[in-house]
Amino acid sequence: MSQLTIFGVAGLPEIVEGADLATGILAAAAGAGSPIETGDVVVVTSKIVSKAEGRTVELDDIEPSPFAREWSAAWEKDPAVTEIVLRESKRIVRQLGPILITETHHGFVCANSGVDQSSSGAHGRAVLLPVDPDASARAIRDGFLAAGVDAAVIVSDTFGRAWREGQTDIAIGIAGMQPITSYIGQVDPHGHEFKVQALCTADELAGAAELVKGNLSRVPVAVIRGHAWERDDTATIAPVLRDQSRDLFR
Amino acid sequence: MSQLTIFGVAGLPEIVEGADLATGILAAAAGAGSPIETGDVVVVTSKIVSKAEGRTVELDDIEPSPFAREWSAAWEKDPAVTEIVLRESKRIVRQLGPILITETHHGFVCANSGVDQSSSGAHGRAVLLPVDPDASARAIRDGFLAAGVDAAVIVSDTFGRAWREGQTDIAIGIAGMQPITSYIGQVDPHGHEFKVQALCTADELAGAAELVKGNLSRVPVAVIRGHAWERDDTATIAPVLRDQSRDLFR
Repeated sequence: MSQLTIFGVAGLPEIVEGADLATGILAAAAGAGSPIETGDVVVVTSKIVSKAEGRTVELDDIEPSPFAREWSAAWEKDPAVTEIVLRESKRIVRQLGPILITETHHGFVCANSGVDQSSSGAHGRAVLLPVDPDASARAIRDGFLAAGVDAAVIVSDTFGRAWREGQTDIAIGIAGMQPITSYIGQVDPHGHEFKVQALCTADELAGAAELVKGNLSRVPVAVIRGHAWERDDTATIAPVLRDQSRDLFR
Repeated sequence: MSQLTIFGVAGLPEIVEGADLATGILAAAAGAGSPIETGDVVVVTSKIVSKAEGRTVELDDIEPSPFAREWSAAWEKDPAVTEIVLRESKRIVRQLGPILITETHHGFVCANSGVDQSSSGAHGRAVLLPVDPDASARAIRDGFLAAGVDAAVIVSDTFGRAWREGQTDIAIGIAGMQPITSYIGQVDPHGHEFKVQALCTADELAGAAELVKGNLSRVPVAVIRGHAWERDDTATIAPVLRDQSRDLFR
């Protein structure tokens, strides 16, 4: 029977710019007695990736535009944070009351361009999403491979949904495996074509990882063991991003 | 360290109307050498719930409305299926080309009101979502409790998302635990309030379960062991349904 085991990797040091995440994750997992193994899927919270890549901004360094200042004043927001959110977006999808849903330069549709002021390591600083989360995942996977461990890597973040309350962790970057499992053209045991044509396995893996990472405990990495994935080093998150031509809700 | 184990429950018989799912699931799990235990979260695919509850419709019995007939002809759809989709909806959210996104009577926003023609056990039949998926989950949980097993139950289905390709399994009914984990008012290790205010744990559990159930194999039930949940027998899926007043995309 197919069985998955999911566990968090605790014991990582506070991540600073330039940190070697792959080496740190391997060491922390080994130190906890559960070394990363070939075949694992390793899910890394984007926040530590951003910190390692220096994707943090001092709010004092930001000069908000008049638009950012006016809207922030109306809704009691920090104008510097609003300015960063706008700079991280290529388009505002919805702006209603204090809510700002944007499309990021990557093509993700989310609140506040994924900009995070919650636990940046200092007051007055914001953490931005990685510039290229696929490249971030790739770099971690390459670090694992260099240590002889062939593991897939997902960089995850916490996003809201259009029609459902409560956020979930989803994949924003991937390396080593395709994010979507396609059933197109396959038939079920009764000979019908599948209603489900494609599952976003990467998002399900990211959400599963959140269950052990939690948001209050400081466990930014989780390992999923037992998930069968096909090695594909051309994989990116791009197939998950719905093209505007297919988007009914943008 | 927090650790989850997730495994599928194979060996269930073909589900017919009136089947006792709780007893069947307990027997199949025990028969496979992995009995359901107190503390488990059991995720049951809605399709077998619908079959057990007789929520199937013979397409020949359906008289499509002129609206259903005209639209179906334009897009080469089965007018009987379209008619069922319309009857299962309280509102059409988007209708563009062959795509029909509806709000079901339960309040779920999804494609085709969740109506499934893919593996109904016979040609010319459709499987509808359970009338009250919380009650369905409740009945299964009660069956487990009667056997001395205190497990939470989630009824899952496979839904698309507004801005991301690939579907994921999500929760449409729940019993024994709240679907949302709230962090409101809590602070992170740096003293900041959390950016993430509430996580939809139930959807993450449903998605995690899909990873072992798969869509090609016939494994309609999965067990998640090691997830800490607080017993709450007032729980329903209602808190996950975004109220129209908070919905920017309906």
